[in-house]
Amino acid sequence: MTTSSAVKYRDDMGVLSDRYRADFPILDQRAPDGHPLIYLDHAATSQKPRQVLQALEQYYAADNANVHRGAHQLSARATESFEAARTVTAEFVRAASPREIVFTRNASEAINLVARSWGEANLREGDEVLLTLMEHHSNLVPWQLLAQRTGCVLRHVGITEAGELDLEDFRSKLTDRTRLVSLVHISNALGCCNPLDQVIPAAHAAGALVLVDACQSLAHKPIDVAGLDVDFLVGSSHKLCGPTGMGFLWAREALLEAMPPFLGGGEMIQDVFLDHSTWAVLPHKFEAGTPAIGEAVGMGAAIRYLQAIGLEAIQAWEAQLTRHLFGRLQAIEGVRVLGPTPEQQSDRGALATFLVDGVHANDIAALMDASGICIRSGHHCCQPLHRHYGVTASARASLSFISTFEEIDRFSEELTSTIGFLREHG
Amino acid sequence: MTTSSAVKYRDDMGVLSDRYRADFPILDQRAPDGHPLIYLDHAATSQKPRQVLQALEQYYAADNANVHRGAHQLSARATESFEAARTVTAEFVRAASPREIVFTRNASEAINLVARSWGEANLREGDEVLLTLMEHHSNLVPWQLLAQRTGCVLRHVGITEAGELDLEDFRSKLTDRTRLVSLVHISNALGCCNPLDQVIPAAHAAGALVLVDACQSLAHKPIDVAGLDVDFLVGSSHKLCGPTGMGFLWAREALLEAMPPFLGGGEMIQDVFLDHSTWAVLPHKFEAGTPAIGEAVGMGAAIRYLQAIGLEAIQAWEAQLTRHLFGRLQAIEGVRVLGPTPEQQSDRGALATFLVDGVHANDIAALMDASGICIRSGHHCCQPLHRHYGVTASARASLSFISTFEEIDRFSEELTSTIGFLREHG
Repeated sequence: MTTSSAVKYRDDMGVLSDRYRADFPILDQRAPDGHPLIYLDHAATSQKPRQVLQALEQYYAADNANVHRGAHQLSARATESFEAARTVTAEFVRAASPREIVFTRNASEAINLVARSWGEANLREGDEVLLTLMEHHSNLVPWQLLAQRTGCVLRHVGITEAGELDLEDFRSKLTDRTRLVSLVHISNALGCCNPLDQVIPAAHAAGALVLVDACQSLAHKPIDVAGLDVDFLVGSSHKLCGPTGMGFLWAREALLEAMPPFLGGGEMIQDVFLDHSTWAVLPHKFEAGTPAIGEAVGMGAAIRYLQAIGLEAIQAWEAQLTRHLFGRLQAIEGVRVLGPTPEQQSDRGALATFLVDGVHANDIAALMDASGICIRSGHHCCQPLHRHYGVTASARASLSFISTFEEIDRFSEELTSTIGFLREHG
Repeated sequence: MTTSSAVKYRDDMGVLSDRYRADFPILDQRAPDGHPLIYLDHAATSQKPRQVLQALEQYYAADNANVHRGAHQLSARATESFEAARTVTAEFVRAASPREIVFTRNASEAINLVARSWGEANLREGDEVLLTLMEHHSNLVPWQLLAQRTGCVLRHVGITEAGELDLEDFRSKLTDRTRLVSLVHISNALGCCNPLDQVIPAAHAAGALVLVDACQSLAHKPIDVAGLDVDFLVGSSHKLCGPTGMGFLWAREALLEAMPPFLGGGEMIQDVFLDHSTWAVLPHKFEAGTPAIGEAVGMGAAIRYLQAIGLEAIQAWEAQLTRHLFGRLQAIEGVRVLGPTPEQQSDRGALATFLVDGVHANDIAALMDASGICIRSGHHCCQPLHRHYGVTASARASLSFISTFEEIDRFSEELTSTIGFLREHG
């Protein structure tokens, strides 16, 4: 049955994944039971194409040196590769200039940077930061720490019955005390794509800045910070086919210029005296110490790889996959998928977080894993959202452009039999 | 002449470098002029053996997943590799437990972490932080930023005529107001190895804690945090043959337990509510967001590689190389090497920072580079130290265990002719 459906899909679709799967060496392995490994945890971290591994190898084996400092050829080449990665990243999000890209370890650090630098410089007691109930912990905890330090107040937009951002609640909580709206673009749990085209103009009209967590959208659709008219945007390399240890903050240059430094050290200074220092120009002012040079080069290669495929093509292909995933899940009795369906929201993310009546998500994931199917279970770093649904854990299958209809079929078949087994023996 | 001296050295020495140079693919290249590349900038960043590149490749091509979260085999393997790297790092510095190792992007971030977390929680107006004149900017600027926030006072120990820590000045500036002494182990500019066996007991007797920046010592000699009785120690992966984007803070567990979190996000929490959160156990409390997983694995491989050679063997070999480097430099007219000679301080670092009468360091480095010799020029992130010497820049040749007597000979021959050329044409 898998074979015949595979043939059918090949007839129907462009099968974008078939053209690129061979680039991913990690897929060439089998589970202990002999089944091919099916990785459906792309939202937790993406896999890396050989082009990215080759860029890392090339950097370390041929060009490795410290950047911006040396007077020799390796340092010149390392600096050139490192700054080229910044330019690629800037173009990827349509930034006005590479100076607007600050490299960080991950998106969490980028949010913390904004909270520590912009937040401490600009927020006073009673000022409000507007978040949402669906935020990842990375977009909740930094603001809690900031609230403790500054006395600013955190408010949270709720979600609708369908698992989307409650725009009415957003508008009611957006006031002249709101200084910042910080929200996720595509939720890593609900999968909903938040209506930035409505949120951002409303926030600006109220005098608030907007930070967008684009971790779950950057590898899945084109992002245009100028078009969005957003103020801050954060992303993570490891979620867009790049190495770990690398993320970035994009912010408008004038904002970055006005912000005090975050971490102190080498690279971020102009002149250091014993009692004071002056700061380097952007973006170096925010990059203390030897940067993650190899990882920046790797992220640059990942972005070029995604661009060569085309983000529009990825988005269209993943939309087909997502509809198929929802169709299969909706056909399984007792499965409840959180967040909007592809019919309710055509631009929703390529993932499905689900609950199963009477069966714990962790048991499902563990049994599926024994058959070589990698899905995630737990709170997905969204405890408040899970509390809203009255659960502590859910299961999640998340896709990328290398996912296939056949993988989704095998996942859903295995899920059906796993649920049956757990109901019988649970 | 180079050939005959090479033969001589091979007869005299163990030639440790000959056994390991083949592990470093970056050395298999020639400069544009056809000369073999001579890399004498190991203090800025170390090169990476193939064992480290293979560990990165293995991680990304076979095991890559997010850690501590998933319910599947890749996540289990990634977590195991990641935490094994922490254990290796803990053993490397003889920590009491892997819980005492906090992974950071680099050593600068580790110092900033201590300044932001321990510093803000413990320092009040008038409390003193005692630094030294030879500190890298990474151990100056974080404390300046802290002083601005808390009103604590920074004091700086001077250096002797010989370019060593002035212990008399240290004792005079260590008072009952001193809460922290933060100093470098081996200076990246002077190369002196600071007498921690005298500094740490004196600091403790005065009621102060001690932070040691071990970036320039970890790849060059055995480090034992318990034996040193130090309180905080920071290190950097890229300076010990590991990838960029990775460093660590070691601190005594009781200190880390008492410190508030630094960055907020996933991984570092136990429970997140909308208005507050509770923190994960050590060391995760200090590691917000997806960590630099591949880079930790790479650093673990680098440490195992260094351990297999033996830090005592590396130290002994580099001491021979350093004596040779100093001998050659001292024979060149008009060259003044900063810091103690190997005769004055037998455990000094394997580097030589030098000034040349009437010739700018940057010109030397640029001309040497044209002949394939990579040395560094500039302030080496030590502007206050350079100001002390009345210069803005110096040149530096820095060694590692893969450096050879032949490289030093070619360096000194090229330096001699470069100085001659610059004096004639400058």
